[in-house]
Amino acid sequence: MTTNTTNSIPAGFEIRRIESRDYAGVTTALSGLTTVGDLSQSQFDDILAYWDTQLLPGRTDGARSYNTSVIIESATGRVSAVGTVFVEKKLIHAGGLVGHIEDIAVNPDFRGKQLGKVLINHLSAQGASLGCYKVILDCDEKNVGFYEKCGYSRAGVEMQVRM
Amino acid sequence: MTTNTTNSIPAGFEIRRIESRDYAGVTTALSGLTTVGDLSQSQFDDILAYWDTQLLPGRTDGARSYNTSVIIESATGRVSAVGTVFVEKKLIHAGGLVGHIEDIAVNPDFRGKQLGKVLINHLSAQGASLGCYKVILDCDEKNVGFYEKCGYSRAGVEMQVRM
Ligand SMILES: CC(C)(COP(=O)(O)OP(=O)(O)OC[C@H]1O[C@@H](n2cnc3c(N)ncnc32)[C@H](O)[C@@H]1OP(=O)(O)O)[C@@H](O)C(=O)NCCC(=O)NCCS
Ligand SMILES: CC(C)(COP(=O)(O)OP(=O)(O)OC[C@H]1O[C@@H](n2cnc3c(N)ncnc32)[C@H](O)[C@@H]1OP(=O)(O)O)[C@@H](O)C(=O)NCCC(=O)NCCS
Repeated sequence: MTTNTTNSIPAGFEIRRIESRDYAGVTTALSGLTTVGDLSQSQFDDILAYWDTQLLPGRTDGARSYNTSVIIESATGRVSAVGTVFVEKKLIHAGGLVGHIEDIAVNPDFRGKQLGKVLINHLSAQGASLGCYKVILDCDEKNVGFYEKCGYSRAGVEMQVRM
Repeated sequence: MTTNTTNSIPAGFEIRRIESRDYAGVTTALSGLTTVGDLSQSQFDDILAYWDTQLLPGRTDGARSYNTSVIIESATGRVSAVGTVFVEKKLIHAGGLVGHIEDIAVNPDFRGKQLGKVLINHLSAQGASLGCYKVILDCDEKNVGFYEKCGYSRAGVEMQVRM
């Protein structure tokens, strides 16, 4: 295994905001994480269009609440990884912003190549540049070590109720 | 201590969406949870106005992403508790919705009266009625027992990075 201690994207890959043409690759990558279910290309496009409309308050730079990025294998155009940082406007911390990292998935064919770490570093930096005072995420106990390698530390317990 | 095993709001209290006039009571309640910092009435109003504009996609019922509720002591108008359920639109679960409960605080003068539980039950029910397939929250280990009494169970680890 090669160890990339820098945060730079490995040669042959690029990272960018999600687009309509990523439908097949993104739904494949996400199905390695959880249930994606029946999601058509047109439903996918509707969600991306909705995300595009959700802007942060009091900004003139078009900064968005939903920021989903994909890592693409340049030679083939394949989606290698996908993840989101969602930015929440709060009352606390003087009307502060908190980033929530959600739905991180690296396609199984591309795991162990530092792409997960590059993606998390990208989303954390995006949260910082949007003005977040912290970025948080929830993960399984088995992935704590991965997020520690990305600079995260344990903060609390995630609780849930299913409807 | 009286034990209220129903989910109904205790006599003498009411629950409703946050309003401009809740500024002093809400900032007081939140300062029992974390740093509120310098937040003026006009900044508070701007945040409420922003929250009002953030609508869920493809709905004609005006359903909102940010849903902040307060519990008011009817006789005095005092804010006894405040909390939020934020609704996130995802690609997974066929374009599903997840509710995030955030910034729960009961004013110290009103703790131990079932108001926290009534508030969480209200926010969970609101998430369900908005169409969420689950509602999640992050808490300190010391509050796990409280959320278990509200029907939540452990789901994972919260990780954070501070900017
Ligand atoms: C977890 C996941 C995102 C990691 O992505 P990846 O691209 O395979 O990981 P990377 O190659 O970027 O790993 C970066 C470092 O973390 C380490 N690492 C990866 N997964 C780890 C784990 N589960 N526990 C501890 N360390 C881990 C790697 O060994 C590597 O260490 P190094 O920098 O010292 O070489 C990926 O395996 C995945 O998508 N899993 C399935 C979906 C999932 O669980 N998503 C997260 C839900 S919380
Ligand atoms: C935690 C908090 C929200 C609880 O609110 P509250 O109104 O005092 O609690 P309630 O009266 O609704 O309690 C409901 C039940 O949970 C129990 N409970 C309350 N706090 C608890 C705790 N920390 N651990 C275990 N059980 C607890 C109560 O005893 C009660 O049990 P019962 O129904 O069997 O009588 C409140 O104490 C608070 O605001 N704390 C400071 C801010 C904070 O920690 N916020 C949450 C961040 S994760």
